[in-house]
Amino acid sequence: MKEQRTLSLVEPDGKGFLPGLAIDTVIFGFHEYQLKILLLEYKNTGLFALPGGFIKDEENLNDAAKRVLFERTGLTDVYLEQFYVFGDQSRHDPAPMQAIMQKNGIKITSNHWLLQRFVSVGYYALIDFTKAFPTPDLMSDSCAWHDLNHLPNLMQDHQDIVKKALETLQMNLDRKLIGFNLMPETFTMAELQRLYETILGEKLRRSSFQRKLLSLGILERIAKKKTGAAHKAPYLYRFIPEKERK
Amino acid sequence: MKEQRTLSLVEPDGKGFLPGLAIDTVIFGFHEYQLKILLLEYKNTGLFALPGGFIKDEENLNDAAKRVLFERTGLTDVYLEQFYVFGDQSRHDPAPMQAIMQKNGIKITSNHWLLQRFVSVGYYALIDFTKAFPTPDLMSDSCAWHDLNHLPNLMQDHQDIVKKALETLQMNLDRKLIGFNLMPETFTMAELQRLYETILGEKLRRSSFQRKLLSLGILERIAKKKTGAAHKAPYLYRFIPEKERK
Repeated sequence: MKEQRTLSLVEPDGKGFLPGLAIDTVIFGFHEYQLKILLLEYKNTGLFALPGGFIKDEENLNDAAKRVLFERTGLTDVYLEQFYVFGDQSRHDPAPMQAIMQKNGIKITSNHWLLQRFVSVGYYALIDFTKAFPTPDLMSDSCAWHDLNHLPNLMQDHQDIVKKALETLQMNLDRKLIGFNLMPETFTMAELQRLYETILGEKLRRSSFQRKLLSLGILERIAKKKTGAAHKAPYLYRFIPEKERK
Repeated sequence: MKEQRTLSLVEPDGKGFLPGLAIDTVIFGFHEYQLKILLLEYKNTGLFALPGGFIKDEENLNDAAKRVLFERTGLTDVYLEQFYVFGDQSRHDPAPMQAIMQKNGIKITSNHWLLQRFVSVGYYALIDFTKAFPTPDLMSDSCAWHDLNHLPNLMQDHQDIVKKALETLQMNLDRKLIGFNLMPETFTMAELQRLYETILGEKLRRSSFQRKLLSLGILERIAKKKTGAAHKAPYLYRFIPEKERK
């Protein structure tokens, strides 16, 4: 299926899309203890931005976010959730969009829909970045993973959006852990701890981490494999399926 | 200061407001172990609805929500937070709004701004309901507290909005407890437990509640008052101010 690339299809009056409302997605990619985010670079402008889009007249808001995620990564059925609406008046700054439109040969009229004030619904996703196929939109010339600790300058308030998304991810980690679907069927406590440490960006104490995670009531310890050195092998755990919990 | 009552000021083309975007506020009221929500009843229609409003062209989204809360309760500086954006296409149902407009003598044109599809940002607040001054807007003839367990039929998807707000309130109770500002300076564990039980809608076991709350690291036990029957008096607690924690 050919992806839909919305930005270049926008008419000057925004026909076909909900007015004044956008979506920005913070797509976190995790793999082997690295945490990255997906960014677009706009053609010949030096501007980096979060993948985003608009909502079609007959489209559900959450479906529009799924569409954006699919268009940029080729992925469906991944964890994707609203986390905040960015609606300050001060975020209205038409200059970067004017630059992008100009570099893409789009005629700039003073009341062009893309240059109006937008309220943006922020979504975040967490995926295994080795499974995604980053794909630029028609206005951008790259779509690539960037290390969260070495981000380029982002346009408008996208830096704030990333910050808030990361805080939300960190705050909800216990509650969303299973839904993120980032661990194999069985895993050691040390492996789980490294996932936490990567997302939280800090080292954790082994004993208190283990105590806390066990208290969540979502982990089941699996019998050790019978090997000659069984006493040295770490315990394996699995997530208890929801219907078996409590 | 005279409150602003926006709905009746809306022109057919919605001039002065952001297009297609609304706010709905679920204002929870707590007092002496009762949990209520604030509802409007629209004149001669039998329709009940959450207090809501629109965002002015030059207004921040969060400020618009504060304004709505102030207009309906007279309160400022209370806990108020976004919790979800309701953006399904199916929620577009102009019939109830047509009925409200008709009963209020507003001319209905087929493309009237109020009859278009709206995406609504849901906010929730939690206040002491004895401190509020419920005030109807110009379109409604009552603004009153309703027991959460005995709500009238709500218009459009407002029942879903209440449900999602309650789930959010319950899920975030530990984390937001201090911010809600519903306890006196000092309180007993039993008093705190009754707040939890009221909001969660279920009885809790005393020992496990106490253990869990103490593990949050936000409570400090105060020395018992020296009285003749000191050994029978329950311990008093206070919230540890953030700067003194850990």
